[in-house]
Amino acid sequence: MNSDLVIGVDLGGTNVKTGLVSNEGKILYQNKFPSNASGSRWEVIKQIELSARDAMEHAGGAEIRGVGVGSPGMVDDHGVVKGPPNFTDFDGIPLQAELERVFSLPVRVENDANAAAIAESRFGAGKPFPDFLFVIWGTGVGGGIIFHGRIFRGPTGGAGEIGHICIDYNGPPCNCGSRGCVEAYVGQRYLSQRAMAKLANHPDSKLLELVGGNLENIEPVYIAQAARAGDAFARDILIEAGTLLGVALGAVMNTMDLRVSIIGGGISASGEFVMDAIKKSVQEHVLKPSRPDIRVLPAKLGNNAGILGAAGLVL
Amino acid sequence: MNSDLVIGVDLGGTNVKTGLVSNEGKILYQNKFPSNASGSRWEVIKQIELSARDAMEHAGGAEIRGVGVGSPGMVDDHGVVKGPPNFTDFDGIPLQAELERVFSLPVRVENDANAAAIAESRFGAGKPFPDFLFVIWGTGVGGGIIFHGRIFRGPTGGAGEIGHICIDYNGPPCNCGSRGCVEAYVGQRYLSQRAMAKLANHPDSKLLELVGGNLENIEPVYIAQAARAGDAFARDILIEAGTLLGVALGAVMNTMDLRVSIIGGGISASGEFVMDAIKKSVQEHVLKPSRPDIRVLPAKLGNNAGILGAAGLVL
Repeated sequence: MNSDLVIGVDLGGTNVKTGLVSNEGKILYQNKFPSNASGSRWEVIKQIELSARDAMEHAGGAEIRGVGVGSPGMVDDHGVVKGPPNFTDFDGIPLQAELERVFSLPVRVENDANAAAIAESRFGAGKPFPDFLFVIWGTGVGGGIIFHGRIFRGPTGGAGEIGHICIDYNGPPCNCGSRGCVEAYVGQRYLSQRAMAKLANHPDSKLLELVGGNLENIEPVYIAQAARAGDAFARDILIEAGTLLGVALGAVMNTMDLRVSIIGGGISASGEFVMDAIKKSVQEHVLKPSRPDIRVLPAKLGNNAGILGAAGLVL
Repeated sequence: MNSDLVIGVDLGGTNVKTGLVSNEGKILYQNKFPSNASGSRWEVIKQIELSARDAMEHAGGAEIRGVGVGSPGMVDDHGVVKGPPNFTDFDGIPLQAELERVFSLPVRVENDANAAAIAESRFGAGKPFPDFLFVIWGTGVGGGIIFHGRIFRGPTGGAGEIGHICIDYNGPPCNCGSRGCVEAYVGQRYLSQRAMAKLANHPDSKLLELVGGNLENIEPVYIAQAARAGDAFARDILIEAGTLLGVALGAVMNTMDLRVSIIGGGISASGEFVMDAIKKSVQEHVLKPSRPDIRVLPAKLGNNAGILGAAGLVL
């Protein structure tokens, strides 16, 4: 009956999560294994195999059409993974070829942000839009571009690396060695630092309470929580961050003639007011004729985007 | 013999220039007519017709395969021209359909920056590169993107509008109503203004001599001329401008995974040192792995890019 089942693998620095996914994007079963990212390449591949085989065993004898994998790092056209952060021995791995050998099934490997973009396009907030930018706003700022309903990879698979778009050439230094990158303003660590620096002047903020009075404990999730609870200071921090993110998204809209941004990642779930702040800022940074068409929407699939996007690669 | 001739029309705010172009990109004949931009749409179309018919008459009886037109403004997929600056009555004109009726030949209309990008791709500095950003650096900053050897138009034909990429969200106001746009730093007028403001402190600069001691006369062409003649002050102005332009180009490289920029327009002809300044800046604003592959090259076709790109649309 379920003749159209696929395996979607979401490879992360901590866990490899695998789902058995139907043609309609329903996750029929899912699991989680440690990814052993500090181990050898063979250990990591072994964990992917264990996780995928476990999911396959729940297919009830139905045929599996293929295996899709979302992986950190750059992924080239042949499914070779390059420089995934937090992995010790996983640079230059021909993961796609390796897994095809292991499973004797069609395998496709794609960058994880691109996979999540595909998931939102097929099953989530992007369904009505043939063209959009998907943004992962979390520890860093990443992205994937959907163009004419398909992922836009660019010449070597690196398109959508929007975290290092510069929004102030005189701005603060970024991890990447440059300065003024949008990630250096709105990435998790920087956002917490800015909140911390400002909180001293706002002793009545709920945020202070949420972190037990200890500024060191500030994390974006608490800023978002305080904002949702109506805390003005926390809202201001996130509105400012959304406004800065919008500057970089404007550059992407101008370059590729896009109108729609879909925002995923932990911080984006703070509420509609963040989307509004991003939208207003994008509108200010694109040409007048496209301003009325600018849309900024929250992602819909949350933590399942990884598995669903990976599945979408082979559906 | 010349069985593969086409007509390339370069429509500008002052003149319409038309060439009779061979398959190999050789301009066999070219003319120039006033474009009557302040007149009615019919007057403008009449001038295009006059110019194109004149060129056709020089084909020596050879068959004309088609007519390509590079036009200012946005051009949609159906060859409708939108909002070309400096034209009084040319917004929303179905130029392609109109000219097909007039000539009974295949016609393609494209944005002029895109047409110039196509010209550089087929016949100029872009020949070796399947993927690059073409930049027109002049009065404003415009661009066209070549991807997999073809123009990348985006969903509605507006891709490559890089002049309004923001390089400082706190930057100076731009004509477009936003602030910190790269055009507000390196576009012709702004560049002249900055040179003017600084020149007072450099009384020995050749530039002052070139403009007859009158700061009001400063134009980028003089800055470029002084720089070519070895004037240190003029070089510094252009190096700074190239560095600022590079910030925006870095955003485009990151977004679309590109490595190569080809710089056309008047200011770019100032010399190799400007290309070097742009390149250094682009490298600082892209991710480390792509830095060694970054290339910034001057355009090759100069004023002929318009005609050749238009011809390239129907070749």
